[in-house]
Amino acid sequence: MISKNQVKYIQSLGQKKSRDTENCFIAEGPKLVNELLQSKNCNIIQLYVLKEWIDNNPKAATQTEIIEVSADELEKISQLSTANQVLAIVEKIQWKTDPEIKGNILLALDAIQDPGNMGTIIRLADWFGIKNIFCSPDCADVYNPKVVQASMGSISRVRVESIDLLSWLKENKEMRIYAAVLNGRDITKMEKPSEGVIVIGNESKGINEEIVKLANVQITIPGKGKAESLNAAVATGIILSHLV
Amino acid sequence: MISKNQVKYIQSLGQKKSRDTENCFIAEGPKLVNELLQSKNCNIIQLYVLKEWIDNNPKAATQTEIIEVSADELEKISQLSTANQVLAIVEKIQWKTDPEIKGNILLALDAIQDPGNMGTIIRLADWFGIKNIFCSPDCADVYNPKVVQASMGSISRVRVESIDLLSWLKENKEMRIYAAVLNGRDITKMEKPSEGVIVIGNESKGINEEIVKLANVQITIPGKGKAESLNAAVATGIILSHLV
Repeated sequence: MISKNQVKYIQSLGQKKSRDTENCFIAEGPKLVNELLQSKNCNIIQLYVLKEWIDNNPKAATQTEIIEVSADELEKISQLSTANQVLAIVEKIQWKTDPEIKGNILLALDAIQDPGNMGTIIRLADWFGIKNIFCSPDCADVYNPKVVQASMGSISRVRVESIDLLSWLKENKEMRIYAAVLNGRDITKMEKPSEGVIVIGNESKGINEEIVKLANVQITIPGKGKAESLNAAVATGIILSHLV
Repeated sequence: MISKNQVKYIQSLGQKKSRDTENCFIAEGPKLVNELLQSKNCNIIQLYVLKEWIDNNPKAATQTEIIEVSADELEKISQLSTANQVLAIVEKIQWKTDPEIKGNILLALDAIQDPGNMGTIIRLADWFGIKNIFCSPDCADVYNPKVVQASMGSISRVRVESIDLLSWLKENKEMRIYAAVLNGRDITKMEKPSEGVIVIGNESKGINEEIVKLANVQITIPGKGKAESLNAAVATGIILSHLV
């Protein structure tokens, strides 16, 4: 049994304001929650679970506070269209070290607003071994439940930081900037860089002009057909697969 | 003004059964509808439009039947979360020629179930100049409103055909089959083939085993990180960018 206040509290974590005040976020489903339970970077505060999940995960009970709930109760607190066995309240991740810029490829996102794209991009960064993503403040919140779900556990391995992107790029003058645009150099014909930052822009407007001006190299995915543009997450995947 | 029956009829086109009986589908929003209006492959039966759309598209009125509706009425018949100026009833596309297998790269989809992925893959095929997609019957319907919206007009340029995939692959013995799996040849180190079919599998189960057995080459996107898998549409984009 959970109280009305608990239900209200958990539901409120769907909103960025509450996540910021409470310093925590929601993750759901056995696969994602088990991955976060095993991560050294994640601190799980509470688990709201169905009996079947406890039966399948007897060890988890010793790691954190577990509250058994009914299917109806889980449905009430879930952010998913269909609740899935377990909902975790997780502390926002505290990264222990600063991001290493020198010698690494970083990703920068300018106003990626779709949470699904945002989560998919975090998962892609993880796939290609990129450890740091810098986001403009108008990107979807990394702890938005849809971002968390779409990242499929990669948020525990990739550091995502919200930052004034333009100022940050201006300050780090030694960093080579690759900006994804519509008429740049063909990424399939470039050498893979050993370090630098790849900037991906907003789904419809692309990258802020000021940032494009700062770029050392403007890059493009060559296309033969008539489609005008590619989905931002798909474009990121293609670019990373050629440059990383 | 539109009648209750018309509202009911248009809403019913959200369902595959009605689309099949009526041989038509829905497309929405000025950008998509204008693209379909200009396509030689598309026959638009009716347009339900707000006055502002007519003002912006005076020529369209001469091409097809136009019904002016109020914002409330459009909201009622729209499949979008927010209706967007215009809804078109479009005849299912009749392709005039048979697909050319010889000398072309084709795409085959095995049980791609998410309509967003399906639409994004159609758009990707268009981007990379692929003209034919063959789908197993358990893929999302190409005329599902979410597929149509996500394809952003590419459904008018890429022929998508539902087919018994396994039988079709068995029959076309001369066709080279590339199957996307988790442990195959590194696509970043392969020569680009000049013809053949690239098979992409279901979001969680991958490609049907029987089809994998038929494949001449098993292909894989190399990853460095710990993410277990990639989104099916993103994976398709990466594979096409290396092989086409």
